[in-house]
Order: sequence, then structure tokens, then C-alpha cells
Amino acid sequence: MRIATLVVGDELLNGEISDTNTAAMGRALGKLGCRALEGRTIADSEESISATLQELASRYQVVLVAGGLGPTRDDLTARAAGRAFEQRLVLNDEALESIRTFFQEQRLEMDPRNEKQALLPQKAIPLANPAGTAPGFVLTQNSCRLLFFPGVPAELEAMLECHLPPLLDEWFGDRPPMGERVLKIFGLSEPKTESMIESQPLPEGVTIAFGVDHPFVHLKLRAAGDDWEERLDQTEVSMRKKLGDFIVARERETLAQNVAAMMKQSGLTLALAESCTGGMVAEWLTAIPGASTYLDRAAVTYSNQAKNDWLGVSKRILHEHGAVSEFCARAMATGLRQATRTDITLAITGIAGPDGGTEDKPVGTVFIALSAGDAEQAKRYTFGGTRDQVRRASACMALEWLRRYLIEHQRR
Amino acid sequence: MRIATLVVGDELLNGEISDTNTAAMGRALGKLGCRALEGRTIADSEESISATLQELASRYQVVLVAGGLGPTRDDLTARAAGRAFEQRLVLNDEALESIRTFFQEQRLEMDPRNEKQALLPQKAIPLANPAGTAPGFVLTQNSCRLLFFPGVPAELEAMLECHLPPLLDEWFGDRPPMGERVLKIFGLSEPKTESMIESQPLPEGVTIAFGVDHPFVHLKLRAAGDDWEERLDQTEVSMRKKLGDFIVARERETLAQNVAAMMKQSGLTLALAESCTGGMVAEWLTAIPGASTYLDRAAVTYSNQAKNDWLGVSKRILHEHGAVSEFCARAMATGLRQATRTDITLAITGIAGPDGGTEDKPVGTVFIALSAGDAEQAKRYTFGGTRDQVRRASACMALEWLRRYLIEHQRR
Repeated sequence: MRIATLVVGDELLNGEISDTNTAAMGRALGKLGCRALEGRTIADSEESISATLQELASRYQVVLVAGGLGPTRDDLTARAAGRAFEQRLVLNDEALESIRTFFQEQRLEMDPRNEKQALLPQKAIPLANPAGTAPGFVLTQNSCRLLFFPGVPAELEAMLECHLPPLLDEWFGDRPPMGERVLKIFGLSEPKTESMIESQPLPEGVTIAFGVDHPFVHLKLRAAGDDWEERLDQTEVSMRKKLGDFIVARERETLAQNVAAMMKQSGLTLALAESCTGGMVAEWLTAIPGASTYLDRAAVTYSNQAKNDWLGVSKRILHEHGAVSEFCARAMATGLRQATRTDITLAITGIAGPDGGTEDKPVGTVFIALSAGDAEQAKRYTFGGTRDQVRRASACMALEWLRRYLIEHQRR
Repeated sequence: MRIATLVVGDELLNGEISDTNTAAMGRALGKLGCRALEGRTIADSEESISATLQELASRYQVVLVAGGLGPTRDDLTARAAGRAFEQRLVLNDEALESIRTFFQEQRLEMDPRNEKQALLPQKAIPLANPAGTAPGFVLTQNSCRLLFFPGVPAELEAMLECHLPPLLDEWFGDRPPMGERVLKIFGLSEPKTESMIESQPLPEGVTIAFGVDHPFVHLKLRAAGDDWEERLDQTEVSMRKKLGDFIVARERETLAQNVAAMMKQSGLTLALAESCTGGMVAEWLTAIPGASTYLDRAAVTYSNQAKNDWLGVSKRILHEHGAVSEFCARAMATGLRQATRTDITLAITGIAGPDGGTEDKPVGTVFIALSAGDAEQAKRYTFGGTRDQVRRASACMALEWLRRYLIEHQRR
């Protein structure tokens, strides 16, 4: 099936915001065993949108469009679609009704501007929006089906989930079997990963590819054919033999999600002491529903006083070794565990930069410590890159320590 | 100037990661008074990359390409460029030397795979990469200049910064004057913002547009002509008259950056108590260098015990009113201030969902409190949307309270 995506908005081209909608459409297609062959990004100009729609409709069987269905005057997608395919805009009763219902249900007053969102090309079939005001719609132009969705990410995702599977089923029936699986690797570089698996023969019809999502390397396994799933399973097993514990997540899982699930299952409790990561680990874990079942608390202890008050780090350690030291990391973890009586504590202290580095402890120097009834560890790392990259690598490494501790703990 | 961007990578089309490179290129162009007319995203296929390069080279004067210059075998951009423009690949001495130097400087061993990154089309002019191994390059094809950059975001940004301004200057000299300014609005919906400014006449040649970056509304002012800057200044003044304190940031500033700058300037100290936001406010503030000058600490108090230990919230309040209550929020802020002797404390407690809501306190119910020597406030909010949206709206609202407090404090 030949599929393309199109996202509309000046803000995506001038760099005001990063586009997450192409990725959301890609994931929704992937779940259905499909993939887009290309993605386009275009400005809020009726002429460009219209020309791009015509071009994509002549080249592809399905075009997913996101954005430009809002209530303000720079939302031009419906108008551009009408122009591209020579259809008048008409006030669509079904769409208008769904907008009114949305406002009633949210007990909000409807702004007259929102009526504009029901002005659709004459032959458009509206698609209900479960999460917002802008209805989507479908247009058929010769052999191409165009699906128009709003650009607000939460609305787009809700609409993709409810409309895409039945529409693709209706139009194309059974789709050619193919699939992909992503293994997420932490602690190895891209060339290092490739060299570790290159001696591994791949089953027929299976190909591999690499990607980087700092600090992770993504290893992508692909297979086509009726038994693609079986062949991917087989390949995953052989990759796990070579890469072992460096594989920290698969598919849409994240390291944080896996650690959160393991924590929940373990019945153990956790407290965090973060200095240079400033709450990043806590924020990641609490982004996942159910964190309260295992997370007791987290301390972002920027000042020495805070490290002393809440974590019991002695003034002597802070004075003699400094806040960025193995001694301090160790004292943060053990002090927090004593204070909170949680089962596991993790501490992170380091120099994220851009300033604050010294010859002995350059920017990127980070100490991580873990304390539990049956384990006390601390280690120094040197991470490269920007402040954000140092913070991310530190937070991921702390989660990785927790993951490995929980694996060991389960084995006992 | 007709400019397009192209990003290469399966992972961008299948939704594994969201593309930030189109936005980075857009910002780099914007700084030079230019904008891309379209953006393309294409898979790691030599054939598609080659065909897209040919098509873009025939339509545009400048094409910025990011991605596919890495060391592994699915990095195909240089090969595809050679194929598109009928140039052999040769080992480029200058590029090879710069890769070797990079590894030496980082005291890392060079993997033989990295040599491949110096295989460039015959007529390519290499561009040094200050932040990584993959050199970029320039190709000229008829009247189009194509610039190839690596896809790792930090490397791309470093290369755009050092190479793009001198190259565009060299090729095109003075560029037609035009500019855009973004005002970021918090606390008003998109239609509400539009209705508040619609009576405001715009100077000639100035246009406005809207965008949403939840929970913010972006108001974009645009002007062309020699005096575009002056006309944007004038428009900004009149928009500020109408929208006043709802404008929380402009251009690339964020609310968190502005609050951080105000905190630094005030000489005051801050401590945070976060429950449902799980450290989001602390993470945002500490992402900005210099947070240690004003941020004493943050407590992510998920358990009641933590609220009692660190914030001094009484068991009576937790029992009688619950952890999600105005009483609790107020007690968190005042207790933290007493414990830490900081000048200002902020507390956030709420139900981010998807579970945990009740009839009285549905999902999205959030209480925010601020405590300072001259102010004690607490308030209930109901935010809509997903867990992530509720958390973001709560964190932004807490920062907005701090911003408004600091404005008041300055005026005194």
C-alpha cells in the first residue's frame, strides 16, 4: 500500500515547535502493519497545501494529513482541500453537531469561531473527534483516500486510534504481512553494537537497521512474509544472546516504563536523591501511572544544606570531598535510605555543565550510588555532550542500575 | 530564496522517535531571515533518497539534508547523493583526517566502520563537524546548493551554527528583509486570544497567525520590508496592551527560562514541593544553567509520610482533608518554607489521572500554593486532558504563579 503523511503548520518549519505528528501517524500505521513512504511538512499557505495535496493524491493510495483544522483564520487545510479537488466548502451538519456536543459535554461556552471548523469540502465525510472540537474528514480523489485530522497531538492520537483501523480494513481488507521490531540498547555505541552482532546469521527475509535516540541505540529487525512474526521472534532470541543485558527495552517500551513495571512487581519501595539531574528520574517515573505504589519520595538537593538536612550527608564529607564525589553519592543514598526506611535508594550527583568543571572533575563527571539491604554501590562516570545529554545519560544510567539490581534481586 | 529541508531515517516515519531536526533547521534559517517552503521526511532507502534529492534539487535553490551520514550500513545518504548526481564515491582525505582528529581529541579508539563516513561524492566539499564523527558536505547541482549534515541533533545544531551563516552569505549576499516574532500566551484559549486582539489595527505589511503548543498559545507576528523590525516592535507593543500579563514569553524564550532569569535577578531563594507533577518543575528549572544560584531544593513527596517528614504537613490535615486539598497544598508550602528558610516556596498537589478521581475531586483537580514573607496563596484548578497534559498545565501554572509574584515583588 502506498502511503504518505502530511503535516501542516508554519510553526513546524520555522522551528517554533518540533513535529510529533509524523511520528504519531507512523506508529498508528505500524500497528496495522503499514508504513509511510514519505512525510511532508508544509506551511500554512492555501496555495502550497492545495498543490501538495494534489501531488500526493496523484502519487499515493492513502494520504494522512494533520493540522490546519483549528478555529482561527490561519487554519486553511479544509479550504485548501476544497480548492485542490474543486469542491465548494459547505457547513457540514454532522460536524457542526459534534462540535456543539463537545462544548456541552465539557460545560464550556462555544466561541462562534468554532463554527468555522464545520466548514468542510462538499463531498467530505466527517470523522468524529473524541478529544477536541475540530472534526476530521475523509475525501476520496480518484484512487486516493485522504484522511484529514486536527494537529493537536492528543486529538490526532485519539482520532488515529478510533478511525484508522476500521477505515484501512474497509478499504484494503487484508494487508500484506510484514512487521518490524525495535530493540533498545543502552551502554553500547552504534558501531560497537553492529560489530557485536555481525557474526550472527539472520533468518531469510530478515533485515536489520540501526538508529540513535540519545543515549539509546535502536536495533530494528524487519521481516516480510506470512511467518514474519515467528522470524522476528527467532531473530530477537539470537540478538539477545549476543547483546544480553544491553537490551533495556523493546518496541514502544521505554527503560523507565520497564523499570517502573519491575518496581511494581517487586513490591519494594524506592526513594531518589537527585542533584545534577534535577528531578529527571522522578519526573520520568511519575509520568507513568501507578508510581505511587512504589515511589515514596524524591529529593532534588541542589544546596549542600539540603543534602545535609534530608539525606544526612555530613558537613565533613561535603567539605573534604565535595558534593560531586563518590563519598557524597554514597552518603546521599545510604542517608536517604536510613531517613525514609525505603528498600532501595538511588543517588546522582555530578557536573552537567556548561560551567563548573575542573581539571580533576571535568563537565560530564557524574557519580551514581545505589543502596539496598543487600547492596551498596557507587561509581564514577564521564558522560559527553551538552548539559541536556549529560543529564539524560545520568538519569538513564541510574535507571539502568535499578533495572540490573531488580534482575539480580529476582534471581535470588 | 527557495529553500527546502529533508530529513532521512526510517525511525522518523515509523514513529520510533519524533523529528526535531526539521525544527532545528527552521530555527537556523529563521535567524538568517530565511524560511523553508517545505520539509520532507524519507526512509533509509538509497533509491528514495536519491529520487527525492533529484526532485528537490530541481525545485529549490537550497536544500538542507540531515541524517544518514552515520557509520552503519543503513546510513545511505552519501551513496544516494552520488547516485542522484552521477558522482563516484571517493575517500575524502580532508574528511578522513577530521574523523581521525575527533577520535584523538576524545581519547577514543576509532572503529574501522567510521572510515566509511569519509566516503563522499567526488565533487563534495566537506564541512567540519565540531561535535561528532560524521563530517557534512556541500554539493552544487545546476542552480541548487545541497548541504548534507549528520542527523544526531547536537551535531546538526553545532554544524548549522558554524556553517550555515557564512555559506548563505557567500552564495546569496544580502537577503530580502523579513522577520517574525512569536509571543507565547498562557491562560487564554486560541479563539479567546484572537477575539481579544481582533479590534486592534495592524500596521501595514504586518500579518498575524496562531499556533498551539499545549498549554501555550503562540501568537505570531510577521512583517516584510526594510523596516520590518520596527513594525514588529510597534505591533508587539499594541498586542501587549491587549493581552498584558497573559504573554509569558517571546521568541525562543520559555516560561521556565523567564522565571529562572527573574529568580536569579531577584536574589531570592526558592524551594519546591511537588506531588502530582513528580519533579517536572524542578527538572525544567534545573535544565537551565545557573539554577543553583536560587534553587535550594525540591521535594517530590509522593507518600503521606514524605509530606509529613519533609514538609511538616500534619497527619490531621492529611486525614481530614486528604493529600489533594487546599489545606494540604497550603501546609506543604508553608511547612517547606519553615523547614528550609527559603524566601519563596511553591507546592503542587493533585490528581493527574488516569485513575484516582472521585466525584468531588475528578481527575485534573490540582491545588497550587505559594508561600513567601509577604504572600500566602492557594487555589484549586481543574485541568483537562491526559495525565501528561494535566501535569504540564499544573507545572506551568505553578511557574506562572512564581512569575506573577516576582513581578509584584519587583514593583514594591
